[in-house]
Amino acid sequence: MQIGRVIGDVVATRKDPAYHGITLLVVQPLGASREPQGRPIVAVDSVGAGVGEHVFFVRGKEASFPFHPTEVAADAGIVGILDHWTVGE
Amino acid sequence: MQIGRVIGDVVATRKDPAYHGITLLVVQPLGASREPQGRPIVAVDSVGAGVGEHVFFVRGKEASFPFHPTEVAADAGIVGILDHWTVGE
Amino acid sequence: MQIGRVIGDVVATRKDPAYHGITLLVVQPLGASREPQGRPIVAVDSVGAGVGEHVFFVRGKEASFPFHPTEVAADAGIVGILDHWTVGE
Amino acid sequence: MQIGRVIGDVVATRKDPAYHGITLLVVQPLGASREPQGRPIVAVDSVGAGVGEHVFFVRGKEASFPFHPTEVAADAGIVGILDHWTVGE
Amino acid sequence: MQIGRVIGDVVATRKDPAYHGITLLVVQPLGASREPQGRPIVAVDSVGAGVGEHVFFVRGKEASFPFHPTEVAADAGIVGILDHWTVGE
Repeated sequence: MQIGRVIGDVVATRKDPAYHGITLLVVQPLGASREPQGRPIVAVDSVGAGVGEHVFFVRGKEASFPFHPTEVAADAGIVGILDHWTVGE
Repeated sequence: MQIGRVIGDVVATRKDPAYHGITLLVVQPLGASREPQGRPIVAVDSVGAGVGEHVFFVRGKEASFPFHPTEVAADAGIVGILDHWTVGE
Repeated sequence: MQIGRVIGDVVATRKDPAYHGITLLVVQPLGASREPQGRPIVAVDSVGAGVGEHVFFVRGKEASFPFHPTEVAADAGIVGILDHWTVGE
Repeated sequence: MQIGRVIGDVVATRKDPAYHGITLLVVQPLGASREPQGRPIVAVDSVGAGVGEHVFFVRGKEASFPFHPTEVAADAGIVGILDHWTVGE
Repeated sequence: MQIGRVIGDVVATRKDPAYHGITLLVVQPLGASREPQGRPIVAVDSVGAGVGEHVFFVRGKEASFPFHPTEVAADAGIVGILDHWTVGE
């Protein structure tokens, strides 16, 4: 999984029907010093994250597991909201 | 998923038969400031996107879900057309 | 899928038996201006591509779909030869 | 798989229920000269790794194999602790 | 698949039990001019490759196919040793 910050959301009225009722958030991946790194991604959210929160997200088919048995065509999903994370040593 | 802009299309008469009748579009992934970032990809389209539109697309096997039960050998698919997306904070 | 140009081939006598009889080509991925971008990949070919041709290829397990029911341990496969591709706007 | 060093951990009380009781560690991927390279990732741990240890980790759905039959929505997992690794020639 | 050179090996006594008896090699991916490019990866080996040899390897779940029916949590596997590869035009 990767660490990111929720930086926005998307509105799409024309989309694959499997997405109806599912929240889509824009997440900016973060580097080790918490700086933005790489392209933002659009993730499905199953944990109720909000803009500004630090989260960890999963890539690949696993992103749709929390929505089972609905088969969402998702490749990125927020699976946890970080209370804190420490990078030591 | 990732955000991109449809920038073109491809014509291929010799291709895997599973692609027949399926629209293939060239999508340029975008960064947080909506600038082009990374290589363009060729995506299957199930939502009727057109050149110039902003879309979000999915990578991996999930790209073929909207065409089920046809098994398309696709690893990228447009699954939504963006009305707008906001990147705040 | 991604756009690339076939730039060579590989010869490997010691390989996983599932590859026997399958053509392996070296493909250079291309950027939006058709310049080489990123590492070349080795792809299985099911459409009869040749050196110098522009193709589109698929990554991941989907690369083996055209060889079904043979289970090829492939993660990249040429699935179409481009007649032309336009990148506008 | 990739080589990395465990550099921290994460605390997340709001997360996908499948993660309960599973250790999440922050791993920094390493380059050939053992220098940090690329973004840190959050990995599930099935081998008891600790901060400071060199490990190898797997990406993708395979990360959840050691937790079978639990279906963890994980895309990165530590699968071994390195005693040593040599890069010669 | 990608082209690489075997540059070392790893020793790990604490690891996922599915790896027991399986050779793990460090492979450096190569660019079009055969220069090192990107992070080294740790790959399972089913073809008997040795340090210094040029190989092609597969990413993803496909890496475990040659070990079937053993379910190895591997995302990279050497599937062929290159006799030679030509990059022309």
